Amino acid sequence: MVERKLNFSAGPSQMPLEVLKEMQDEFLCYKESGCSVLEMSHRAKDFEEIIFGARDTLRRIMEIPEDYEILFMQGGATTQFSMVPMNLAKQGDTFTYVNTGQFAGKAKDEGARWGNAVVTASSKDKTFSYIPDEITVAPGSKFIHITGNNTIYGTSYNSLFDHGDTPLVADWSSAILGKWIDVKDYDLIYAGAQKNMGPSGLAVVIIKKNLLELEVDPVVPVMMRYKVAADNDSMYNTPPTYSIYAAGKMFSWVEKMGGVRALEEINKEKAEMLYDFIDNSALFTNPVRVKDRSIMNVTFTLPDEALTKAFLDECKMKGIINIKGHRSVGGMRASIYNGMPKEGVKTLLDTMKEFEKNNR
Amino acid sequence: MVERKLNFSAGPSQMPLEVLKEMQDEFLCYKESGCSVLEMSHRAKDFEEIIFGARDTLRRIMEIPEDYEILFMQGGATTQFSMVPMNLAKQGDTFTYVNTGQFAGKAKDEGARWGNAVVTASSKDKTFSYIPDEITVAPGSKFIHITGNNTIYGTSYNSLFDHGDTPLVADWSSAILGKWIDVKDYDLIYAGAQKNMGPSGLAVVIIKKNLLELEVDPVVPVMMRYKVAADNDSMYNTPPTYSIYAAGKMFSWVEKMGGVRALEEINKEKAEMLYDFIDNSALFTNPVRVKDRSIMNVTFTLPDEALTKAFLDECKMKGIINIKGHRSVGGMRASIYNGMPKEGVKTLLDTMKEFEKNNR
Repeated sequence: MVERKLNFSAGPSQMPLEVLKEMQDEFLCYKESGCSVLEMSHRAKDFEEIIFGARDTLRRIMEIPEDYEILFMQGGATTQFSMVPMNLAKQGDTFTYVNTGQFAGKAKDEGARWGNAVVTASSKDKTFSYIPDEITVAPGSKFIHITGNNTIYGTSYNSLFDHGDTPLVADWSSAILGKWIDVKDYDLIYAGAQKNMGPSGLAVVIIKKNLLELEVDPVVPVMMRYKVAADNDSMYNTPPTYSIYAAGKMFSWVEKMGGVRALEEINKEKAEMLYDFIDNSALFTNPVRVKDRSIMNVTFTLPDEALTKAFLDECKMKGIINIKGHRSVGGMRASIYNGMPKEGVKTLLDTMKEFEKNNR
Repeated sequence: MVERKLNFSAGPSQMPLEVLKEMQDEFLCYKESGCSVLEMSHRAKDFEEIIFGARDTLRRIMEIPEDYEILFMQGGATTQFSMVPMNLAKQGDTFTYVNTGQFAGKAKDEGARWGNAVVTASSKDKTFSYIPDEITVAPGSKFIHITGNNTIYGTSYNSLFDHGDTPLVADWSSAILGKWIDVKDYDLIYAGAQKNMGPSGLAVVIIKKNLLELEVDPVVPVMMRYKVAADNDSMYNTPPTYSIYAAGKMFSWVEKMGGVRALEEINKEKAEMLYDFIDNSALFTNPVRVKDRSIMNVTFTLPDEALTKAFLDECKMKGIINIKGHRSVGGMRASIYNGMPKEGVKTLLDTMKEFEKNNR
């Protein structure tokens, strides 16, 4: 095996080595099944154990109440951008979006295909470096949609706001399981798995059961109906079996580590290490308003392109990969999900400190 | 490792052991990337090599002309049931379906959400045990849709029919790469990967480029637009990275084995072994018209429930799994995709012969 590096990718992202080793060990033959999980019929008992086990573990670690359904879906968060309006509203209905970045904007664009997508608050004026303080619901909205953690800009909703009786929908892709989210505060949460839950190709939806009873326009494809997914235990057609298996392993690992709250504490410490240094640095800058900072994605910049390049080269030499910021904003971004241990963050921090010393 | 069994599952299905071993070897760290493919950013160079490599290999082994685009998508064939009408026709347009089984019917049902889905030929009268001889195109059809290989019933189009200038769309999920398909005969081919191409969670679409230029209704979600997928190299959002990697391994294996035509010859031999025995058996029966038989899914029945149960028990003892027929038809089904070696079919055949001898 070639040496594993420190992978700060925003997603797909680093997984705990012990989880990967367990998967490698049973790669050719899963338990008594006689085959690899990759080869396993989704109608086989062994797979039922895998998918229902994953669902039950997720319910425990997120303390998901019984009046919420857990769905495993394909197409990532981007497919959810369309499914939410198609399932929660009729064509032409009004719904509210908060614009806190690129994916929030994309969610709104998909909503606009279906109805009257109103943006009531935005942080675009300051390059999405904060979460708006005043968020209102457009009159008659069938739901209000937020992007809980903004991966590109390193912001996060660290508290919620008053939305009355309007259902609250949140894309928590890049913070789910890395930060405590109280499910009861939401009517629908969705998340791409490829951050804290393992592999890409899987999206998890946590939806209040009463929303499954809404009438859905006949034009909506069968694969985009929450009720169909719920009625068929997420297996209306062949599900992404291996991704569900991998996510299940991640859920069990979270439980073994003491749960989401325990991991959140570790993640806070990891993030604080970086933010503390950056805030006291003469060289590195983080533009995000302190109370809106993400503990999952820490963004930072250097004064010019030459220094940025020099730092990225330095990282490469230290075995630090995927630390470059999103192409739309530049700079650096350290994604420090559950799979990134404290020692990894420490190595990054040491590299930053040394770089500052050498470039004062 | 517990012993691997003989897996005749209709999908997900058995993969070549050498492919699985290669994947297991590089599971913790892919080449020089410093991470598992599961953890790899889809924007990383290593992943670009994987996805473009897979695409290029598929183009070679299927001899896909340059005026066709190859897309990697999520949501399985069932999502394609909706995407085809949404991208090839306007709402209310007419299109034609041939009803050759459960999935053909589901494809038609999804088409009916979008327009006037006309069935011009069906084999429902004889429990889908044949492919209709006379297939016509409904006037004004934007496309005609067929299900190339019917997994549940064990039938297959072994020749095509005259469809004039109407674009021909085929779901070749359960035969692609296991049987020679001349791409030039079609305007659009789609296939779920979990038969001959490896893992679930991935669908491959081969679409004539001129179809990408059709105007698409604004209501169609961004994730359901072929043009968006094509313009973004199948990476508009995070693709199912591990499934694409696994499919790429399968494509390379097909090439190494001498290509699709070489594997088709082997598959024909495998199928003939079973059909020959069944046709001369006093106990086992296959109901499919000979010229319409599938070389991928061989279905067979026994005279009564007691014998069926006894045979399934016998199979279990021999390490033969997932041989039970689809719950909608009963009996047995042996799916003998590329990943099932001739020796595996031989073992099944011996089990059938012995069973017949003991139950005459």
